Amino acid sequence: MNAPEIKSLSGHAAMPDIQGSHDHRDMPIEQVGVRGVRYPVLIAREDGSSQPSVGEFSLSVGLPAHQKGTHMSRFIELLESLNQRGISLSAASMRAALSDMLKRLAAESGIIEVSLPFFMMKAAPISGVQSMMDYRCRWSAEQIAFSAGETPALRLSCEVKVPVKSLCPCSKEISEYGAHNQRSEVTVSVTLRDDADFSVESLVRTIESQASCELWGLLKRPDEKYVTERAYDNPKFVEDLVRDVATAVRSVGGVAGYVVEAENFESIHNHSAWARIVG
Amino acid sequence: MNAPEIKSLSGHAAMPDIQGSHDHRDMPIEQVGVRGVRYPVLIAREDGSSQPSVGEFSLSVGLPAHQKGTHMSRFIELLESLNQRGISLSAASMRAALSDMLKRLAAESGIIEVSLPFFMMKAAPISGVQSMMDYRCRWSAEQIAFSAGETPALRLSCEVKVPVKSLCPCSKEISEYGAHNQRSEVTVSVTLRDDADFSVESLVRTIESQASCELWGLLKRPDEKYVTERAYDNPKFVEDLVRDVATAVRSVGGVAGYVVEAENFESIHNHSAWARIVG
Amino acid sequence: MNAPEIKSLSGHAAMPDIQGSHDHRDMPIEQVGVRGVRYPVLIAREDGSSQPSVGEFSLSVGLPAHQKGTHMSRFIELLESLNQRGISLSAASMRAALSDMLKRLAAESGIIEVSLPFFMMKAAPISGVQSMMDYRCRWSAEQIAFSAGETPALRLSCEVKVPVKSLCPCSKEISEYGAHNQRSEVTVSVTLRDDADFSVESLVRTIESQASCELWGLLKRPDEKYVTERAYDNPKFVEDLVRDVATAVRSVGGVAGYVVEAENFESIHNHSAWARIVG
Amino acid sequence: MNAPEIKSLSGHAAMPDIQGSHDHRDMPIEQVGVRGVRYPVLIAREDGSSQPSVGEFSLSVGLPAHQKGTHMSRFIELLESLNQRGISLSAASMRAALSDMLKRLAAESGIIEVSLPFFMMKAAPISGVQSMMDYRCRWSAEQIAFSAGETPALRLSCEVKVPVKSLCPCSKEISEYGAHNQRSEVTVSVTLRDDADFSVESLVRTIESQASCELWGLLKRPDEKYVTERAYDNPKFVEDLVRDVATAVRSVGGVAGYVVEAENFESIHNHSAWARIVG
Repeated sequence: MNAPEIKSLSGHAAMPDIQGSHDHRDMPIEQVGVRGVRYPVLIAREDGSSQPSVGEFSLSVGLPAHQKGTHMSRFIELLESLNQRGISLSAASMRAALSDMLKRLAAESGIIEVSLPFFMMKAAPISGVQSMMDYRCRWSAEQIAFSAGETPALRLSCEVKVPVKSLCPCSKEISEYGAHNQRSEVTVSVTLRDDADFSVESLVRTIESQASCELWGLLKRPDEKYVTERAYDNPKFVEDLVRDVATAVRSVGGVAGYVVEAENFESIHNHSAWARIVG
Repeated sequence: MNAPEIKSLSGHAAMPDIQGSHDHRDMPIEQVGVRGVRYPVLIAREDGSSQPSVGEFSLSVGLPAHQKGTHMSRFIELLESLNQRGISLSAASMRAALSDMLKRLAAESGIIEVSLPFFMMKAAPISGVQSMMDYRCRWSAEQIAFSAGETPALRLSCEVKVPVKSLCPCSKEISEYGAHNQRSEVTVSVTLRDDADFSVESLVRTIESQASCELWGLLKRPDEKYVTERAYDNPKFVEDLVRDVATAVRSVGGVAGYVVEAENFESIHNHSAWARIVG
Repeated sequence: MNAPEIKSLSGHAAMPDIQGSHDHRDMPIEQVGVRGVRYPVLIAREDGSSQPSVGEFSLSVGLPAHQKGTHMSRFIELLESLNQRGISLSAASMRAALSDMLKRLAAESGIIEVSLPFFMMKAAPISGVQSMMDYRCRWSAEQIAFSAGETPALRLSCEVKVPVKSLCPCSKEISEYGAHNQRSEVTVSVTLRDDADFSVESLVRTIESQASCELWGLLKRPDEKYVTERAYDNPKFVEDLVRDVATAVRSVGGVAGYVVEAENFESIHNHSAWARIVG
Repeated sequence: MNAPEIKSLSGHAAMPDIQGSHDHRDMPIEQVGVRGVRYPVLIAREDGSSQPSVGEFSLSVGLPAHQKGTHMSRFIELLESLNQRGISLSAASMRAALSDMLKRLAAESGIIEVSLPFFMMKAAPISGVQSMMDYRCRWSAEQIAFSAGETPALRLSCEVKVPVKSLCPCSKEISEYGAHNQRSEVTVSVTLRDDADFSVESLVRTIESQASCELWGLLKRPDEKYVTERAYDNPKFVEDLVRDVATAVRSVGGVAGYVVEAENFESIHNHSAWARIVG
């Protein structure tokens, strides 16, 4: 085995760089990096302001066959750099962070993923009272070769998880009164064509508009009456939900492709009904 | 510091017993042991048969001030012994296991907890089709001094988590049609007076009987009509649910005390409504 | 049954107040409210600044026997009020929020709990490079009667979860070289006597100082050498960890009582070693 | 809209079949079914016996554009049928279950996934004491068209999660004594070519053989000495772990392709180091 390179750090004895030594197994690694790293983040809002949140990051690069290991500390240096510069999370800053990561790691391919909660202020449908509604989103920027021999290409995607209400058309049809309904979660992941046109908030509103009824954090009685009747007037199977959301998502600005999933936490069973459309 | 005792193991060099050495900090430890141990378990059913499941165990003992450490491997030896003897989980076997653990660890106080999924076969309400319904239960056997200077006493408790359906009385009352409903989880923990009289299955059925409607794994359309109308005819706030379950639990065989919790995974919000009664 | 009170909302038909109607079951409810509510929060830091985070709230009140239900929307109104006023989370603001909640709900007892991630900037031990380290804390303010007939008293507590490194003294002693070590989590919950003297950051530093070694987000090679050797020089059983942390926590400003837990995610088993001291 | 078909159920009024009605959105659905269904399972062992466990199932089928909905209850009927016939989980029974599901649902494509804990009895390396070690596995049988216009083909895969110990080569090299080590999780998913040759237990043993050291539930002191020294003698980066496991997995009987992931729950950080190889 070739000797590891000795690097000198000012004020410390020279230490061997094991990670940088030569590897003889002839096996490249698709992804190597850090996972489950929590760091403060700012999210760029559509009104130009920033919302603070807490991100959970996964950062990785491709490692060539001849290299024994990557330098894990550089991933955290990148996060600290973004944090100190007060960078807001957006399509543009995800691209820039990916480019920065590839330079720091001297890598040709890599993936940055970050998952985080975010909030939108909503007004209740009748009373108009204001409250925050919470969602989760996940940004992903990938510079990878999607098949062997290809030049790595960049792909940017954004996923949101939107809780909604679903009401069962079958239950409504066959019952003399009432209809079972429940909380559902719609997960939409979109790949982006044109960053400038895309807004997470717009994607959320598009999804909410297709449910039996959307949710709010704070509802007064006239609002609760509205939600109840709106859902009863608007029954949807989980199949209807994914089809209607998929149709609507196509017209969201900047979207090149999508995966739509809906999961109904069934109120008549202890399991979920679930559907998925890829477009 | 006093030297650790040297124990000889046949076929191996003598090794110091660090855990058994003297501790000078003068601080007893309430609980020390293992947690997150998964082991196969059998559950004793009310019909006398056994149901296999997978338990997650927590086992701990009290450690006197003068002792540096406990012997962790003995907890796993106990689980392996229960496993090899094919012991079924019940009030009686929990008592016996606790007694066994205290002897193995030479301890005066200790707690065994095990949490596990279990199943009950249910017939749908109209069609009668059979399917399994899953629940979770947690057994706990404690030999502890509940206040300083007291002699340790044994307390045996059993907790079950039962998913049900709740339908909102307010939503029904104020809306012209429909009513929001959702999956709820009722958690009941009972301390036992008379082991012989207690049946987990009986506790589950008692809880289910108090919901807007109980759940099934498999429902045909006539069953779905029944569930929908039954819930609409039987609206309950989360407050009604805990009060009605608490009243019913009092009459379950062998129960000395109870804590009743109900959590509604609200279908109009992205958070839960929740209540708790201690009796 | 007595008729529900009819309340008029401007612009809407009068709607019955089901929750406010009389209940005949003669059963008070210890806690009723909302759970799993995510809302933006600010945390007061010891340097006087605020750190944004995302809180998960549980809010509940006691309900007298004669009252059918509580008014769930008022809990969210409280959170929105705190949010709009830019209130920072601290011992003082927890007390004020509890008082506000009891007024809004016309309740004599109640509990506010909030759990959230937070960050502290740390310098690596040798290189001095800066990075964020993440922790979790949970604040709890309770106004409850701790036994029947007592006047409700206020109790304020704060829990922190601090990840550290533990190295096994037995493994070190019996092995010719090396010693197994692993990530551990120390959870300390303190009840507060004197709010003014208490600092979460100080509690975290106190806990970290008692581990085999503390953790950092970003370490360069000289730092990794330090951490490795420091842990080897400083072996601790999970029993040592809870005893040493408990001893140190007693001297943290403002602490009236404590529960100290440590869990070692053992690197030689697929389960944890765990201990707990109540003081 | 075309009227839903009316089906008569003996003993019940005829009820409309909403799910079977015609859909006009012209949008096929890739997957629709149930998720999060817990059911008892038996696992076929390599010695011909069966081990009971608890499975969490996801079952779905493709839905043609013209069909409004699937019939969810048939998925549960399949699980109940497998349960009543005492079917043991294996490559062969996964194939048969998939075929059964497609017939029941009159579908051309579909996926069955089941995730479950399982146990292997292990003897400690020096003392030979026996204890159970827990793992997780996930079986997946897919009959899908992997690109547009293709005939659906069957793909069978099996994933196992194996906890092991990793010891850092860099830490060992640069430190005068000791080396940081931690629990790691290796996840290997293999697609199967020849079912008959494949054994889950063999895959687990292959993975364990490549770690710095494997884990056991129960270790006596001479075993702990062995594990400590074995890991110190056998340091591996997360990159070494995925490369060595990938190399070894290639020679496991019946394996056509693999994805190898390793995650080190770093004992010097509060995040993981992680790597992935696809082969």
